[in-house]
Amino acid sequence: MDLMSIKDPSFLKGLSTSELEMLSGDIRNFLIERLSSTGGHIGPNLGVVELTIALHKCFDSPKDKILWDVGHQSYVHKILTGRASQFDTLRQYKGLCGFPKMAESEHDVWETGHSSTSLSAAMGMAIARDLKKENSYVIPVIGDGALTGGMALEALNHIGHEKKNMIVILNDNEMSIAPNVGALHNVLGRLRTAGKYQWAKDELEYLLKKIPAVGGKLAATAERVKDSLKYLFVSGVFFEELGFTYLGPVDGHDYENLFENLSYAKKTEGPVLLHVITKKGKGYQPAENDTVGTWHGTGPYKMETGDFVKPVNPPPAWSKLVSETVRKLARKDERIVAITPAMPVGSKLEGFASEFPERMYDVGIAEQHAATVAAGLATQKMKPFLAIYSTFLQRAYDQVLHDICRQNLNVFIGIDRAGLVGSDGETHQGVFDIAFLRHMPNLVLMMPKDENEGQHMVYTATQYDAGPIAMRFPRGNGLGVTMDENLKTIPIGTWEVLKKGHDAAILTFGTTIPMAMEAANVLEKQGYSIKVINARFIKPLDEKMLLELFKENIPIFTIEEAVLQGGFGSSVLEFAQEKGFHHLEIDRMGIPDQFIEHGSVDELLEEIGMTTNDVVIRINKLARKKQKRA
Amino acid sequence: MDLMSIKDPSFLKGLSTSELEMLSGDIRNFLIERLSSTGGHIGPNLGVVELTIALHKCFDSPKDKILWDVGHQSYVHKILTGRASQFDTLRQYKGLCGFPKMAESEHDVWETGHSSTSLSAAMGMAIARDLKKENSYVIPVIGDGALTGGMALEALNHIGHEKKNMIVILNDNEMSIAPNVGALHNVLGRLRTAGKYQWAKDELEYLLKKIPAVGGKLAATAERVKDSLKYLFVSGVFFEELGFTYLGPVDGHDYENLFENLSYAKKTEGPVLLHVITKKGKGYQPAENDTVGTWHGTGPYKMETGDFVKPVNPPPAWSKLVSETVRKLARKDERIVAITPAMPVGSKLEGFASEFPERMYDVGIAEQHAATVAAGLATQKMKPFLAIYSTFLQRAYDQVLHDICRQNLNVFIGIDRAGLVGSDGETHQGVFDIAFLRHMPNLVLMMPKDENEGQHMVYTATQYDAGPIAMRFPRGNGLGVTMDENLKTIPIGTWEVLKKGHDAAILTFGTTIPMAMEAANVLEKQGYSIKVINARFIKPLDEKMLLELFKENIPIFTIEEAVLQGGFGSSVLEFAQEKGFHHLEIDRMGIPDQFIEHGSVDELLEEIGMTTNDVVIRINKLARKKQKRA
Repeated sequence: MDLMSIKDPSFLKGLSTSELEMLSGDIRNFLIERLSSTGGHIGPNLGVVELTIALHKCFDSPKDKILWDVGHQSYVHKILTGRASQFDTLRQYKGLCGFPKMAESEHDVWETGHSSTSLSAAMGMAIARDLKKENSYVIPVIGDGALTGGMALEALNHIGHEKKNMIVILNDNEMSIAPNVGALHNVLGRLRTAGKYQWAKDELEYLLKKIPAVGGKLAATAERVKDSLKYLFVSGVFFEELGFTYLGPVDGHDYENLFENLSYAKKTEGPVLLHVITKKGKGYQPAENDTVGTWHGTGPYKMETGDFVKPVNPPPAWSKLVSETVRKLARKDERIVAITPAMPVGSKLEGFASEFPERMYDVGIAEQHAATVAAGLATQKMKPFLAIYSTFLQRAYDQVLHDICRQNLNVFIGIDRAGLVGSDGETHQGVFDIAFLRHMPNLVLMMPKDENEGQHMVYTATQYDAGPIAMRFPRGNGLGVTMDENLKTIPIGTWEVLKKGHDAAILTFGTTIPMAMEAANVLEKQGYSIKVINARFIKPLDEKMLLELFKENIPIFTIEEAVLQGGFGSSVLEFAQEKGFHHLEIDRMGIPDQFIEHGSVDELLEEIGMTTNDVVIRINKLARKKQKRA
Repeated sequence: MDLMSIKDPSFLKGLSTSELEMLSGDIRNFLIERLSSTGGHIGPNLGVVELTIALHKCFDSPKDKILWDVGHQSYVHKILTGRASQFDTLRQYKGLCGFPKMAESEHDVWETGHSSTSLSAAMGMAIARDLKKENSYVIPVIGDGALTGGMALEALNHIGHEKKNMIVILNDNEMSIAPNVGALHNVLGRLRTAGKYQWAKDELEYLLKKIPAVGGKLAATAERVKDSLKYLFVSGVFFEELGFTYLGPVDGHDYENLFENLSYAKKTEGPVLLHVITKKGKGYQPAENDTVGTWHGTGPYKMETGDFVKPVNPPPAWSKLVSETVRKLARKDERIVAITPAMPVGSKLEGFASEFPERMYDVGIAEQHAATVAAGLATQKMKPFLAIYSTFLQRAYDQVLHDICRQNLNVFIGIDRAGLVGSDGETHQGVFDIAFLRHMPNLVLMMPKDENEGQHMVYTATQYDAGPIAMRFPRGNGLGVTMDENLKTIPIGTWEVLKKGHDAAILTFGTTIPMAMEAANVLEKQGYSIKVINARFIKPLDEKMLLELFKENIPIFTIEEAVLQGGFGSSVLEFAQEKGFHHLEIDRMGIPDQFIEHGSVDELLEEIGMTTNDVVIRINKLARKKQKRA
């Protein structure tokens, strides 16, 4: 059918199962084709085609509230709610968001990006519905991976207790992004196979009849034996214990089965957990065959072969550079243990994992636990390497502060995807870490200018034993610089002058250094002599160099691909004020006080005024002011 | 026995059970007497006397690692590890810490304060032990309340999966601080009573023998029935499902029972969860009778009667002022729903709860969930009031940023215990919130100068419908000011001039306003005319008033009882720089880049140089500098 003509999901009510099956095929073909040019979360979406259609057929969105946990599996939902025609702009600047977005549609009732939030939000919605005496269903759809996130478990505990009506769809594909880990995963595995034993139910009835009919205590005991069968054969004891009615497991690609269970769920009082088994990548062979998570989210690919369209000989990816350096160091340093919250692939820890399986812990989507496991390791003189994305480190704010920094433990935090991340958009931008880490006592925070300095910083971090140390690094690839053979330590809190100059100084670090150098060159041609400093330690500042710079009495321009409020530039302001140099002309460039949506990093930087040209204009202004005063 | 003579727990090995019982009595008497003058966490500690003694008798600390989750129940442990003589300084400045503290003793292997961290830390220690091929036990002691914290659940999931040797002691007293809530609590309740059915075990064996011995499928089925008995009668299916060996429930005040189970646990491979039932306040009637949490942590009390030693007619407590104002407003505004993560008593929400039981949700120790439930409510046009302590809001950093602020939802966050909290010490100081909230787009953050302004701000918050709004307020009582009859809204982002002046201006808010006024008066006598501004909106700043002030060209002095890095003072610096007023003399007073230990708030303020005298000295210096320049 013509997907472009879909305005809302109401048309589904009239379709037969065979028509729905044709629609599923159309949607799959559409996704496989469109995503081959835009990239996107192909695997998760192919897995939920039937489930999404079934939900929209059985419920009345937006009156009934469907919440997509994490949200990268909402493409089918977007197609069914009238957004097919926007898919050529998927995850692009000003285009369709890769996650649910209230501004796009009234059917997007909850915005996601980070995992494990849907159950709590659904609880809030259910409370509101009941207080307003409204009549509607609340249906959070959560993956088995997201279920291990602490806040989802907190929510299960609360929902099971309160007994509010809610239909939790557990979308179980045995993967989060990488294959899942954890005891809950094992529970789900047992449930998955439990279905096979349902045949035994009748025979058990027969067995039970053989139990002698006695009175008193024994009768009560027999009754309890019967109860216990529920545990065994209806399965789902784990969720039943928590207060849910457990339904399933049901084949998530079988409409009749889905309809039957959904209609049963609708009639059930109290919270229901419907366990749906889906196959990530269903219907597209390369994605179906994926066992590690390569097809979770991808760039463009060749539709026919499933080959990824990749640049020829790109510089080394940052994640890989960092994890491979850690791996190399781990050969000589037995204290090193790597920890990742469900990102072994994203953090490129596969090599480390295969060489040091006993020193590699993927703890699942559980950032808080990951950080405090690292702290526990550090109390025993180990050297934990916590590999975590900047945006997900937000989940472990308290653990980094209360457990790691407060106890001043030697944890090395590798902050991946720091800065703007591009197409994943506002939920994933790694722009808050400086502002939320800078006020944590004891922490060293650094960012390298290129991959060569990066490898030295990794070495520095593993050698450092005076407390926690963190290294931010960006999404994507390095600059392609020559790599030193031998690793060396960089003295903590030391900056580096990249270019001398006497009219103004640019202080910056990491990804914005090339822009600073370029701007300095342009300004050079305009007659200015610009100093460029690699402020590679964000905390502590290089106070010695800064004081010398202050004494030069030239304008200072700070650049950071991070929020301005309380960021690096503010720390320069603070230091200038503390040392009595407040009269200096200081200007700070960075991310303003707003959330930054999706788009290419270059487009986003242009939007917020962080281009070479902007730097040139603002330094010109600064220098002129200074001349005027002089 | 003479508790003062205890150097370490090794003496316990030689004691008989009856001698241990005498020791328990001595320790109880000691605690009841000492804490009557110092105050402290009496209830939790009286509950774990036998458990702590049993652990130290059965294990070899510090080789074996005992971790106290939350840590307020570590007093008995402190006595047994040679610190009895320091109890007269408990929770006092430079005295014995109320929580485990590595610097105090090698037996304190993990520092706590915030809940639910012990399992993750224990996992780190167990990994380290196994990698180092050491031989020791790791024994986290966690309460049933702390178990519902998301990170503890994340840890259970991981530990059960990894099958590391670890003995988790579940100290189940049916309370966290207030009585516990949540489905897990119900699970524990069933386990508690399950013990009563253990007698049925033998009889079941008899029943099972009656099941006909048949081959093939039926035999397998019978086998599964037998397995299912484990679920029923050995109980603990919830934990068994997660991969733990469940032991218990055991009476936590019965030595023989404890020894038997601990020695069994020591011999068991893989993770064990020993379910110990204790009675909070055991052995002291007033504390035993407590059903709401009054005796969780207390100030001084009269030992004989259990009456609390309280000031006569104190001004209203801040928590009560806020929650009672919310309650009053809730009578007319049906949108208001209160949410607390396990602090209904601390947040003084009892009145609200009894008047609006259906609009009050205590979600247990689950700050992340609490924040996102609030967000979910707000999507449905409700007006959630999230009552949370500043220090615990740290746990919900990501939820406030990603779910509340990013979606710009109308959540009112009441940030209790903001600023220094005194005797609870470094894990509980509410000094980071400004620095970690200020960079969140869309958020309004305010703090009232007194309880009258406080009630107007609560009203303002409930009327505000343009996004999230938070009000910080301190621990303890208000100033005793006259309360207005009618509530009014305070325009967002407006400050107030409390005192005119032309030589310097003090910008501050909340608890530090009296100090600022006092300093201004002292300076007045020294010949200076000092303006004092109530900067009640921390974000957004009152830009209009600030610009006018900048134009006056007088020195500015900011005061905040919060960290300086990225705090309120920094926002003034940032704004001055942005608007071209960087040449102004600005000095910022606040909490330096270090963790602040326990002590009275006044002692702590003196230590960090935040007294009236310090303000006078620093403003003198500022004003002289200005004169010199002029």
